[in-house]
Formats: sequence, structure tokens, C-alpha cells
Amino acid sequence: MFKSASVSVSLSKADFKKREPALRSALLDAQQEMIASRAFSTLIVIAGVDGAGKNDAVARLHEWMDVRHVVCNAYGPPTRVERHRPEMWRYWRDLPPRGKTAIVVSSWYNDPLRDRVLGRDDQCTFEQRLARINRFEALLAHEKVLVLKFWFALDAKVQKQRLDALRGGKARARRILTEWADIEHSPDAQAVFQEAALTTSTVSAPWMVIPSEDAEARDLALGRSVELAMTHRLAAEPGEPVAVPAALARLERPSSVEAIDLGKRLAKDRYEEELEHWQRKLAHLVDRKAARKLPLVVVFEGNDAAGKGGAIRRLTRPMDPRRYRVHRIGAPSDEELARPYLWRFWRNVPRKGQTAIFDRSWYGRVLVERVEGFCSEADWARAYNEINAFEADLQEAGTLVVKFWLAISKEEQLARFEARQETPYKRFKITDEDWRNRLKWDAYATAAGDMIDRTSTAGAPWHLVSAEDKRHARVTVLKTLCKRLKAAL
Amino acid sequence: MFKSASVSVSLSKADFKKREPALRSALLDAQQEMIASRAFSTLIVIAGVDGAGKNDAVARLHEWMDVRHVVCNAYGPPTRVERHRPEMWRYWRDLPPRGKTAIVVSSWYNDPLRDRVLGRDDQCTFEQRLARINRFEALLAHEKVLVLKFWFALDAKVQKQRLDALRGGKARARRILTEWADIEHSPDAQAVFQEAALTTSTVSAPWMVIPSEDAEARDLALGRSVELAMTHRLAAEPGEPVAVPAALARLERPSSVEAIDLGKRLAKDRYEEELEHWQRKLAHLVDRKAARKLPLVVVFEGNDAAGKGGAIRRLTRPMDPRRYRVHRIGAPSDEELARPYLWRFWRNVPRKGQTAIFDRSWYGRVLVERVEGFCSEADWARAYNEINAFEADLQEAGTLVVKFWLAISKEEQLARFEARQETPYKRFKITDEDWRNRLKWDAYATAAGDMIDRTSTAGAPWHLVSAEDKRHARVTVLKTLCKRLKAAL
Repeated sequence: MFKSASVSVSLSKADFKKREPALRSALLDAQQEMIASRAFSTLIVIAGVDGAGKNDAVARLHEWMDVRHVVCNAYGPPTRVERHRPEMWRYWRDLPPRGKTAIVVSSWYNDPLRDRVLGRDDQCTFEQRLARINRFEALLAHEKVLVLKFWFALDAKVQKQRLDALRGGKARARRILTEWADIEHSPDAQAVFQEAALTTSTVSAPWMVIPSEDAEARDLALGRSVELAMTHRLAAEPGEPVAVPAALARLERPSSVEAIDLGKRLAKDRYEEELEHWQRKLAHLVDRKAARKLPLVVVFEGNDAAGKGGAIRRLTRPMDPRRYRVHRIGAPSDEELARPYLWRFWRNVPRKGQTAIFDRSWYGRVLVERVEGFCSEADWARAYNEINAFEADLQEAGTLVVKFWLAISKEEQLARFEARQETPYKRFKITDEDWRNRLKWDAYATAAGDMIDRTSTAGAPWHLVSAEDKRHARVTVLKTLCKRLKAAL
Repeated sequence: MFKSASVSVSLSKADFKKREPALRSALLDAQQEMIASRAFSTLIVIAGVDGAGKNDAVARLHEWMDVRHVVCNAYGPPTRVERHRPEMWRYWRDLPPRGKTAIVVSSWYNDPLRDRVLGRDDQCTFEQRLARINRFEALLAHEKVLVLKFWFALDAKVQKQRLDALRGGKARARRILTEWADIEHSPDAQAVFQEAALTTSTVSAPWMVIPSEDAEARDLALGRSVELAMTHRLAAEPGEPVAVPAALARLERPSSVEAIDLGKRLAKDRYEEELEHWQRKLAHLVDRKAARKLPLVVVFEGNDAAGKGGAIRRLTRPMDPRRYRVHRIGAPSDEELARPYLWRFWRNVPRKGQTAIFDRSWYGRVLVERVEGFCSEADWARAYNEINAFEADLQEAGTLVVKFWLAISKEEQLARFEARQETPYKRFKITDEDWRNRLKWDAYATAAGDMIDRTSTAGAPWHLVSAEDKRHARVTVLKTLCKRLKAAL
């Protein structure tokens, strides 16, 4: 699943009690306005791992909302009546009218996920079923249904403890445990979940992750997400395509880029040794016959002043200058502005044996363009899938895609900015824009977290690198690239 | 391909000469406004069968437009530079900037179609490639590219004559002929083309058919479609999702429902004999063991007063009343209005062994709702694919879907309306609404033609039935249903 699923988050009971009343009344207000306007209906899909407390969260939501206008639909194995009809029939039948809210437990995702994990469906059938789900949800979104999908996530270890405790417990609790709970953290299952989550996170119905280790934080995140999505929808112009802001996904918790451990350091002598070691390794790898047939794309994103340039220089030193190009991505040219935003990157797709290094990249669409409002919400919300498709095209043509996020703390950034300003030969590196961006630190962190969630694919995952210590960052980048290259050759 | 592809259309050279100047200046005006505003670029995709005169049509378009702002990109087998990069790279590279027009010959459709027809790709790969094309074109449409796709159609017989003539002709002409031309009218190739056309006819980039037997009519249809689509786009609000109106597809020619041969008659004695024969046949078929496991959906659409009710009564007479239901679809109830438009039909999906007969149906979305403006252009333009997906879901669950369009002439309708008004016991059948609809005869014919084009799938084709003579219609409906049932059992 999404990387943010593993970001730990907790809330004290006292804090929860303090915040609950405000949330309840905001949620109720939003619901009442939806009921009064009958502008849309709300469909809340609850999914996630066993033991995450989905039922408790749903119970709390019931408690908070006006239950006269909420139904809960849970689907088990199809009944005889249901089996005699198309798979989607029962979900269609139970669609709530406008003004009402339906909470769906064990939804249309269950069977496709299970059938793929258990090997009953081949990859093609799985993709067809996901495409059908996308068509279904897109139709609903166009037809005045607000579709909110929540994935309740739990760390594998925590889940195991809980399930073990349950197994020792009451018969009723034991009954709910299936073999399923034991395999859902297997690498195969995780890969299937991730593919499903990415494929079905569309503009109108993205998945939102609810970290579920802490019950209070879990319920607050669920309630607040529903409230915000309803309010967002109520404010939308009629007829306007409404995106559920991906930002909702990380409410009430740090973004996954903020959760990066910045404490890692590398001493100077170790650094020089390791740097030489990995540079030699890289030189050897790119010289291999197979590497001469491999197109390679390396992407660098990260906080301003995180040291992308320095890391790139360490990377290119052992490489043949005829076989790589560094693309520094700034404001687009007139030529580029007159065409779809991906055009400037498609132009620079490397051919076999060539390496294209991007110092900032197409991810600008979901970072700076999103934060600064250079494109509409619909534009950047759409971009995650467009970017995944672009990188899938690259990979299908045999390209290895390696992506780095270089992270520093806000304090370290300030220190580096000041150093740049004070050192004459570094002053060119710092602009007013850098200072302006710094003011939007939190918005950038949110955008980066969503980006990591939505574009970490099986073939092209993000590598999160602590750059608080430049030496550590440079060696980690080199080492990671060598490992990815070795695996690909 | 689309049914309208076989509707014959011609234009005299004199008529063409008379209409050309107005078209040229309108087309030039639209192009100039696009150039001046730089609001979008235009991508004209030219596809279709060999021998249809695609190159001549492109030459004419060049002649008509301001060629300083038009490029023509023709793609052959990939060059070395292209082969070393992803398949879509060369199409991305050549995207025109805003204000410019690119005519694309041998586009991104060529290889997927050829590879499927020749059996190099399996069905799954084919679907994946079509999905990639849809993503590509959707991105372009969102990013200010007007994508216009034209399919040049030619009757199989006419094509053969032309190719034979070319074969006897000049060496240059012979060179362009490939084995391809000989197989593109094979049933397999036709099925592949149809699937591709339906799958990739999206809201923002539907296929438009250009019947190409008559060169003048062909060129005029192409030029006028480009002009209308540009004008439509220039008038669109910025940010609004713009549908290329499907109506463009049938410019300058009768709709396929208007091309139905209404001359068929059945004498009274023959009628009674045949009616009895086919009713007995139907009774026998639905009583078979396999039929008791088959869900059956029969859809009736057609002109007002075409005799749908009478045909349905003849159909149900031999059937067990416990095993069928007739759904007469009028204005939706409050319950139905509060949910997505397909909900009222999903509710009534038959289970195994049951028959659901729809006297008017979900096609109301693309007929009355489109013509009367009960839904937006984006809504009905989207509906073709939604409806195809709905019927595909039914078929996947084993349902047989049989669809009839009952056609009468405008004169016959008037006669029947008047008869209804004059006969006291028939008067309930005629309302003011019927008279109002009659005033929009042409708009309904256009909508019906588009519907037939866009929703005649391999598994659920439309059956076009002349109902000018009620006896002929009733027997044809019965006979067709028996044939479809027999094939399905």
C-alpha cells in the first residue's frame, strides 16, 4: 500500500476528547447540508487489513452522524439471488439516494483482490476487473455520488500481535479470523494491494489511508476526512468535475517525507572510502554489455538546498560523458508551454545505453505547480496516474527508472540558505523564490507525501534519502543506484 | 466499423463546387481564430481502409487551410532512433504547439490493429494497448489539444474494384498495396476494428466516420467536420471538458436509421402463417433446458407509433407469464431520479431463466435526454461507453441482450397519429408530447444514428427493423429473436 500507511501516528485520549466535539458538530453540519440540498449522496468504502478495527471505526462514525440518513451495507459471499445476476448487481441495487450516506464494508474490491492474491485470476483478468471498478466509480462520481474510499492500514508486526491476542480470545473473535489475515502481509498480497490502490486512485475517487494502530487517531482521521470531503463537495460549482483532494489522505499525521529519519551521518574518512568504492562499482556496472543496451532515467527531487546538485556530480563522475545528460528543470520555455506538460520530458527520453538525469522533473506538476496554483486541482489530481503511465511506458521499453527524494529539516535548510547568501561564490544558488518556497514548507511536505504515496510503483519506487548529512546522502544515492542497476542487468 | 459507414452518400460535382467556397472560408476563419488565440492545437488523425482516398482527402484539406500552420506527420516502420525508445515517443515528439494543426497519417492505431488482426498480440495485450491510447488521447484533450479522428470507410465490394483497378495500373500505385488491403474486410479484421473504434471513442476523442465512395462527399464531410469541431471548441468555456459532438460523425449524410429500407411488406395470409410458425418456434426455444438457465434482455426502441407495443405482445404470447416481465419506461420516479440514471435498469436485471423486455430503455439517455436537453452534452456523450459497459456486464453474467430499432417514415407516423386521435379507444395512446417530439424528427434521427453507431457491439448488435408494415415488423422481430436465442443456447 501507500508509503504513508507506515507513518506512525497517535493521539492521547485527552486530546481526542478535546477535539471530538468540534469534529462531531462540523461533520453533522456537513451531513445536514447534504440532506437539505440533496445535491449528492455519499458512499463510504471501508477496506483494509484485518485487525485494524474497521468495525469500531464504522461504529464511531455512526455515533457521530445522523443515523436516520445512514445505511451500512456489508457484503458476504453472494446469496442465491445475487449469484444469478451480474457481479455488480448488488452494489447497484443498494446505491443510496441523494441526501443519504451508505457505508460499504467488504465492497466490490474484496473479490478481485482475493481472487488475484490466491491466484484464481490471472493478471489480465485482474486488470479487467480493476478497469470495471474504475468505470463504475467514475459513473457514480459523474452522477452525483461522492465516493470516499478508506484503507485501514496496520504495520505487519502490530497486526500479528493483535491477531495472536484475538486467537487466544473469545470464540466470536476467533470466528472472524480467516487464513486471509495470515497472507495479507505477504509480499505478493502487498504488491496486489499496491497495484489496485494505484490503479483505482482516480481523480474523483482516490484511496485515503487511515493508519490504524491508534484507535483515537484512526477514528478522528476517518471522521475528519468525511467531513472535509463533504464540505469540499458542497462548495463545488454544479457540473464541475470534483476531485476529492488527495491532501485529505494525510490528515492528522506527518507526511511520509517528514517521517524520514534525518539522524543518519557518515564520518569523513568512511565517506571517502565508501564514495570511492561505490563510484568504482558504478563505473563497472555501466560498462557492462547489458548496460550498453539499457536506457536509464534517474530523477532527483527534494527540498531546496538538499544537495541534489552535489549528489548528481558524485554520480556522474564515474560515467562516460558521451553516455549521460543532466537535465536541469526550471521554468518551461515558450516552446514547452505551448504543449502538454509531459512533452518536455518525452523529448528527453534516453535511448538504449544512455542515461538521462533529471534535476527536478515531471513531478513539478504535483509539487510546485500544485502548491503555487500554476495548474488547477483537477490537473494535478489527474497527474499522478498520467505520471505512472508515463513511467510505465518507459519501463515497458526496457528503461530503468530510479527516483530519489532528498530530505533535509527546516532548520538545516535555513542554515544552508544563510551560508549560500554569505558565501560570494555560492550566492548565485539562492534566489528570492527559494525564500518564498520556504514559507510554504508544510504545503510542500503535504504535496510530497501525496506524491510518494501515489507514484511509488512496483517498478519505479521512490527512494527516500536523508540529506541532512551530505556525505550520507551522496553515498546512499550511489549505493542505491548500484543496487537497482545490478538487479536490472 | 460503425453502421453508418455503410450508408451510401454522394454529391454531384456541381453541388460540390457550389458549396466549397463557403466551407473554405468557414474553415479558414476557424483556423485563423485558433492561430490568433493559441487556445489549443488540433491533431487530425486519418485512418481507414486502403483505397478510400485518404491521401487525396488530406491533400484537399491542405489546399483549404493555411498551410503555413499545418504539418503532416506520416509514420512508417520505426527508424533506428525510434526503435530505441518507447512506442509512443515519436508521437509525443511531433505534437504541434498551440495554434498549429498536425495531420497524422498512419497513427498510433496502426500497429495495435495490425498486430491483433495478424494474431501477433493476444486479446489482453490488445486491450492494454487500446487503454494506453485512451490515456494518451485523454491527456492531450485535457492539455489543450483538439483530437479529431476520422475513419475513411468503403464498402468491401467497392474497395475490391478499386484495388483491382490499381493492381492493373502504375507501378507506384501497385507498390502501396499490401496484403493488408486483402484482409481488412475479413470478419476477423472487422471485429477488431469495431472493438477498437468503440473502445477508443471517448467523450473527448470519438471516431468520426467518413464514407469515402464519393470523393466530393468525402472531402466535404472531412472539411466540414474539422471546421465544426474547431468552432465548437473555440466557443467552449476555458476549463470546461469539451466533447466533440458525436453528431459530427454523420454530417452531410442520412442517419443509418433513415437509411433503413422501409419498402418491406408481408401479406395477411403469409403473416398469419409465419407468425404462428415463429411463435411456436419461440415457445419451443424458451422451454429448452438451457433457456431455463439463460437471463434474456430484449430492448425495444424506435419512432413513436412504430408499433413497439404490438410487437412485444406478439413476442410474449408464447411465453410463460411467470418467466417474463415487460418494463415500460416513462419518466423516472422520484426514487429513480435521486440515483444514477442506470440504477432503474440495474434494479430490473433478470435472473437466470427470466426475460426482461424493455419498451424503451436506458437508451433514453442518448435519445430523448440528448435531444430535449434533459442532460448535458458531456453526460450523453459519456453514456455510450457507460451503456456498452452495462451491457458487457450483463453478457459476462451470461445474459443474452437483443436490441430492436423499429423504424417508420415521417408520413406513416402522421397517418398513425391521426388514426389514434380519431379512434376513441386508441386516443389514450397519443399525447401532446408525441406531437412535440415529431417536430424534432431530424434531431431524433441524428441521435438514433449515433446511438446505433456507438452501441452496436459484437455481442449486442442493434437489429434495424422496418415497421412501416406492422406485419413485417412483428414477424421479423420474432424471427430475429429466435435466431439469436438459438445461437445462444
